[in-house]
Parts: sequence; structure tokens; C-alpha cells
Amino acid sequence: MTAPRTRPAVVAFDVNETLLDLAPVQATLIENGEPGHLLPTVFSRTLALGFAAATAGTRCRFRDAFEAALAQLTGLSAAQRTAVADAFGELSPHPDVKPALRRLTSAGVRAVTLSQGTPGVAEAGLSRGGVTPLVERTLTTESIGVWKPDRAAYLWAAGVCDVAPAELALVAVHSWDVHGAQRAGLTGGWCSRAESAYAAVYEPPHVQGASLLEVVEALLALPPA
Amino acid sequence: MTAPRTRPAVVAFDVNETLLDLAPVQATLIENGEPGHLLPTVFSRTLALGFAAATAGTRCRFRDAFEAALAQLTGLSAAQRTAVADAFGELSPHPDVKPALRRLTSAGVRAVTLSQGTPGVAEAGLSRGGVTPLVERTLTTESIGVWKPDRAAYLWAAGVCDVAPAELALVAVHSWDVHGAQRAGLTGGWCSRAESAYAAVYEPPHVQGASLLEVVEALLALPPA
Repeated sequence: MTAPRTRPAVVAFDVNETLLDLAPVQATLIENGEPGHLLPTVFSRTLALGFAAATAGTRCRFRDAFEAALAQLTGLSAAQRTAVADAFGELSPHPDVKPALRRLTSAGVRAVTLSQGTPGVAEAGLSRGGVTPLVERTLTTESIGVWKPDRAAYLWAAGVCDVAPAELALVAVHSWDVHGAQRAGLTGGWCSRAESAYAAVYEPPHVQGASLLEVVEALLALPPA
Repeated sequence: MTAPRTRPAVVAFDVNETLLDLAPVQATLIENGEPGHLLPTVFSRTLALGFAAATAGTRCRFRDAFEAALAQLTGLSAAQRTAVADAFGELSPHPDVKPALRRLTSAGVRAVTLSQGTPGVAEAGLSRGGVTPLVERTLTTESIGVWKPDRAAYLWAAGVCDVAPAELALVAVHSWDVHGAQRAGLTGGWCSRAESAYAAVYEPPHVQGASLLEVVEALLALPPA
């Protein structure tokens, strides 16, 4: 279905759940009287709201979709919803992020982030994890008013990095994101850390691994371009 | 944002959750050892998987997305997932369906269904509720390989009914569906039976009500075309 893949020149990492742990958001949900296990449902609903907007030809900000999901799934007041959404500013990286970024950049491959989320969230989280110097640039689709997995999001990222789509890899823990990247001509890498199964309705990932480090190793093992 | 609305010539009703109660699907989930409260999460995830496929420019069948959502959210075997999905064949209408359809058709307005789902599900449910004679035609977007809220879905329905988009109303309990219909030029009617709040990231509904009958009354109260 796609051309044989080669070692990427740049790897774009998704941010929420892929690089950054949503634990502070979950903690704030609990502080406001909601069960912590609700977070995956809220996050899924957030994505569904945004994807549907995109499918209908409109758009919304990630933060607004997140607060709308909270309004549909909880009894929180507007002020409480704001407090929970604000917790995205307190995220830190998962433990496998630093080793993966180190391995990648020491092999001469560039690293960027490609988020769906609010500008500033990725920057704060990377800084909190002490990995800012390992990341060349942070990108969010909010800058262009589209939502991943619209192919425009991935092609824009390739454009910003000044590489061909085939030279850019997208690494994410969400199968829909990997699928979208691959449909746009990128190399896709799925980390199985967050989903119990890759969604069978999508194109299988080019490479995969149980940790970000494993995914990076698999990308580096691809033949040179 | 949209033109002043007039009384529709045809009303298209969404099927899953709007006309038909998913209780048998929930019961089968429980029979297979999963908590019943998981159904809304599975249903949301199903939609997110399908919307993301549409956003990425691909497509999948509702049933396949539903089974993929079950695989991601439960420990069910493939055979068990099939059993749960098969329960869509056993749905019956919500109590407010028959009065709403009777009121509509007795006022001379045509009624059709516009589903995302598997062909046959709507027909079986309408028959089980004894309301088949009140519905002129059943439509599912699976016939054209798109997912609501892609505007093509709503325009196709207007085409099949041989009316202008402005003469067709879409009634659903999901705000994303109402939003998509309105963006396509239809009149939108939201029934608040299933969502605790209309999603603030979408265009507000033209009419709304707590039951399908209330929504139908609101549509009939619109000025003549």
C-alpha cells in the first residue's frame, strides 16, 4: 500500500499521552470530585468532538473540545472545567522519552513535536523533563486550524521541517495518528504503551514497539534513503 | 449563520440511540463479563475511530469500528466481540419514537432514517417497534462509503428524498450530527435525551427538545416554506 520505508531524517512525536503523561490532569479531575478512571473517556470524547468538527468542515481548539467533553461527561462547573484543562500546563514526560530522544539525536536524526493541543503545553512539559535541548522545534496543528489526522497537518509539518513527507516519521501512541501520517506519505511508528490493540480499521503501522525507545530503534534500523 | 428555517418537507432521524435503544447491546456486554457502564465509552470510541478514518481520507464500516473499539477497551475474544456487535440486530425503539412519527406523518411530513450503521439494523428495530409503516425509507451512509458528519452524507439523503437541503431536517440525540446536518444546509433538531449538554464547539441547534415528540413539534411550528 505504501512505498518501502527508509530511515527518516526527522521524527515528529505526538505530545499528549505520547511524550507527556496526563497524570496531573487526572489528579485535578479527582480533586474536583470526579473518578480518575474517567480521563480516558474524556480524552476519547475530546478527540471525537474534534474529529467530527473536522469531518463536518469546521474546526475547534483542543482546549474547547476538552472542556465540551467535560461538560458532557461530568457535573463540573465552568470554573472547575477550566481548572482541569489548566492542568495540561503541568505535564511531564513519560520515563521512556529522554532515552528515546537521546538515542535518536545521537544518531543524527532530528526530533520535533507535532501536537493537536494548546500552544505552550509541549514546551512546558519538555522543559519540565529537561529534554528541551533534544527537540529542534515544537509544532501544534492549532497554528494552521486543522486537526490531525487530516493529511494537511502532516504535510505542513514536513514543510516546516523542510523535508519530503517520506523523510519524516510520526511517532504516536494512538493508532489514528499513525494511520493519518502514513496516509499522508510519512513513515509511521506506533508505541503500544497506551492502547491495548492497534485499531484494525486502520493501515498497520510501519514500525512499532512497546516503548518510545523501541520505536526509535526500529526507525533507525530502516535502510538508508 | 444559516438562513431562516422553514417547516421541513422530510425529516431524517438518526438511528442508534436516537430511534433505537442500545439496551440489548449493553445486556450482551454484561453477559460477556464486561461492566454495562462501558457502553457509552465503547460507542464514543467507535465514533472517534470512524471520524478519524474520515478525517484521514479513508473509511471503515460502523461494525468494524465498533469491534475495534471493543478490542481496545475490553478483554473480549473475537467471538465475544462478534456476539456483542450482533446485538445491534435486536434493538427496539425508544418510547417517544412512535408518538413522534405519528405526529409528524399525520401533519403530512415525510419521515426517513439516516443511519451510520449496518444495513438492516434500522429495519429490524422499526419492525420490532411496529412503526415500519410510518417511515418512508431507511438510509445508511454505509451505502455511499462516507460517515456523517461529512456533508456528502446529508446531501445524499436530500438527493434520495428528492428535496432541497433546506427542506430536509435531521433529528438526532448527538450534537455532532446536528452540527454536520446544519453545515450541509439542513434544518437541525437536537433531542437532549442522551447528552447532558449540547457540545459548545458546534453550531447551536435550530430546534431542540427533551423528547423526539418535542423536537417534532418544534419543527412543525416553523413557518411554511
